[in-house]
Amino acid sequence: MLNVKTSSEVYEIIKEEFSGIDIGAEIVDIKECFGRILDTDICSNEDIPAFNRSTVDGYAVVSSNTFGASETSPALLKLSGSIKMGEKPKIPLNEGCTFYIPTGAQLPENADSVVMIEYTEDFKDGFIQIEKPSSPGNNVIYKADDVKKGETVFKTNHKLRTQDIGVLAALGHNPVRVKRKINVGILSTGNEIVEIEKMTLNAQIRDVNSYLIYSGLVDYGANPKIYGIVPDDFEIMKKAVSRMISENDVILISGGSSVGVKDETLKAIEAQENGKILVHGISVKPGKPTIIARAGNKPVIGLPGHPASCFFIFKTFVINILDNINGITNTFLTKKTVKASLILNIPSNHGREEYIPVKLKPENKEIKAEPVFSKSGLIRLLSASDGFIIIDKGCEGLPKGTEVIVYIF
Amino acid sequence: MLNVKTSSEVYEIIKEEFSGIDIGAEIVDIKECFGRILDTDICSNEDIPAFNRSTVDGYAVVSSNTFGASETSPALLKLSGSIKMGEKPKIPLNEGCTFYIPTGAQLPENADSVVMIEYTEDFKDGFIQIEKPSSPGNNVIYKADDVKKGETVFKTNHKLRTQDIGVLAALGHNPVRVKRKINVGILSTGNEIVEIEKMTLNAQIRDVNSYLIYSGLVDYGANPKIYGIVPDDFEIMKKAVSRMISENDVILISGGSSVGVKDETLKAIEAQENGKILVHGISVKPGKPTIIARAGNKPVIGLPGHPASCFFIFKTFVINILDNINGITNTFLTKKTVKASLILNIPSNHGREEYIPVKLKPENKEIKAEPVFSKSGLIRLLSASDGFIIIDKGCEGLPKGTEVIVYIF
Repeated sequence: MLNVKTSSEVYEIIKEEFSGIDIGAEIVDIKECFGRILDTDICSNEDIPAFNRSTVDGYAVVSSNTFGASETSPALLKLSGSIKMGEKPKIPLNEGCTFYIPTGAQLPENADSVVMIEYTEDFKDGFIQIEKPSSPGNNVIYKADDVKKGETVFKTNHKLRTQDIGVLAALGHNPVRVKRKINVGILSTGNEIVEIEKMTLNAQIRDVNSYLIYSGLVDYGANPKIYGIVPDDFEIMKKAVSRMISENDVILISGGSSVGVKDETLKAIEAQENGKILVHGISVKPGKPTIIARAGNKPVIGLPGHPASCFFIFKTFVINILDNINGITNTFLTKKTVKASLILNIPSNHGREEYIPVKLKPENKEIKAEPVFSKSGLIRLLSASDGFIIIDKGCEGLPKGTEVIVYIF
Repeated sequence: MLNVKTSSEVYEIIKEEFSGIDIGAEIVDIKECFGRILDTDICSNEDIPAFNRSTVDGYAVVSSNTFGASETSPALLKLSGSIKMGEKPKIPLNEGCTFYIPTGAQLPENADSVVMIEYTEDFKDGFIQIEKPSSPGNNVIYKADDVKKGETVFKTNHKLRTQDIGVLAALGHNPVRVKRKINVGILSTGNEIVEIEKMTLNAQIRDVNSYLIYSGLVDYGANPKIYGIVPDDFEIMKKAVSRMISENDVILISGGSSVGVKDETLKAIEAQENGKILVHGISVKPGKPTIIARAGNKPVIGLPGHPASCFFIFKTFVINILDNINGITNTFLTKKTVKASLILNIPSNHGREEYIPVKLKPENKEIKAEPVFSKSGLIRLLSASDGFIIIDKGCEGLPKGTEVIVYIF
């Protein structure tokens, strides 16, 4: 029998065994950085902005020259010229004078604020009428206001989003040191499994799992490799797993993990150098006969053969293992979730944490979640599901209308 | 002055002008299909499953042989053998007999249901005790129950998710006909803009926009190309835009789109063959001086120069143009959104649709959204923002605690 562990026990084991495994780093061009994970803190090499900058189109002034100005009693300032974008002003601002300054341009020496063009009038007589008082710092970003030289902008292990790439560009930080993508080997086992291009003869089944996992790993940002299909044979499997261990950081084997006739996966993992089974059986539904093991410092996971079960275990425990290796602790933003309200009652489960696939339906401003029942078959189940909900093992079922968190596939 | 249009007018123009532009298709391997958009309906070439399949480990039976069975008064069936995974059963099931059958295996002829192993007892005397009545169809998926031969599984324009790749594998559908990725050319304009690797001298600014847009396009699934920086010079710009039009499906130009000194972008677009300005000015904040044009059937967009404004217009109108070209109408699942409650009051805006960047903070089971104010500078604004909210142009401000929809960057 399986020595079944709860999901929280398993997450604890994963954290202890696999967090911080060093997979190394690489230096990549900023254009290739989207979705990559920083392997270093990013500090600014300079003050940003590097100069006092206007945030509006208007007139650079010495604030005290505008105090008391109004529409009826404007301040009159002599126009000393126009500041050009990207150029350092050649002469300083004198008392009683002003410069035209566009958004983003550098303030002249002595200027301490900018009056928006809307509050000025240019009668083309060499003087500008200022119709509103300005105070120091008005419409200006001072040098180093945004980031000071040496300041840390991102911490290591941060996953780079589009806006972060913009920040790296602003800092002139290119190329970037990121973690190497995790190499993941994928193997399918089972005498009934055939290549997807083959016609299924008699009772054969196509290898859905390899492609499901492959795509999920691409989505995650790992570097997957498919090793094909092996029969439920200890010697062949042992050899295949051994090769995968030598070529990858993480090894995923689907099928053949239920107790009974076919425990070759378990034996093939145990037979590896420094092979150690950490978990055999998790009290979740579906996905109970999952194996989590290590060979040296490499995670080796035995996933259920049924594609839906395999997918749930991939999306929960395998992703958690990858996050632990990558040092990602705050998955709040890397995981896509939505809140939705249940369209149907979900009956009580059986003392196991349960994963229920759901279809999401926007209705007015609400999102509704409809459970997809698996009797209808694999393809309908997968194509109809947008994500899944997790039902706690202690839960006695959820009534229609309950607000649930949906994990988007 | 700009002839400013509302955002809904602009979305209407985009739909009319750019939806269904044919960018062509390509045939790609299933492994490269994640995130790609189908250019064809996908129909099943066969019945799935191709045979009556057991959904449990147990005993295949003729239901009527088990009627009335119970723990105290079990039915006794003669064991005819064991069915192997992936093999067609060689002999039919006879009255009063049973076969052991594993999950996923093919039912023998005459069997109409399977009794789970939990409700049976094998005394190893050649007979199996059945302790529960079974009814036809129990624990069986019939041939074609999932998908019938010829049935449509996905419609054209569907964006492929991980679970969909699993479906394609199950159908044996490889390679796959998908839309070609949209080629997008990116140009930065402005005399003050320098390459990101350069030290910024005097009042120069690094080219943030090209990399921000590039990364956003990678995230979207387009094929971006950076064309570098040109000065605000009509002739140089005209030539650069012309080259980009000949090499891309969509052309994005950032900077130089405000009315006044620098309307070279507008003139450079108008000077193209069949160049036509569709929109010059959108009543949104930030991002008002946006240009949407076409050169022949190719969208040419002039984005604001300020990176934050540029990013908002990219995430709203440019993404909408790409969705229209790709035929994606239901953006409910392709756009990442979360509901959150505001941590601070947001003051009324000024008759324009307004985009407010926010930082998301999980608090207990709630998600809070904190507006990020832009005075603090570009880098802080970008690195602190997780997404943005849209304030309707008629809205008089939102009080703290309001539930808002956040569009994740």
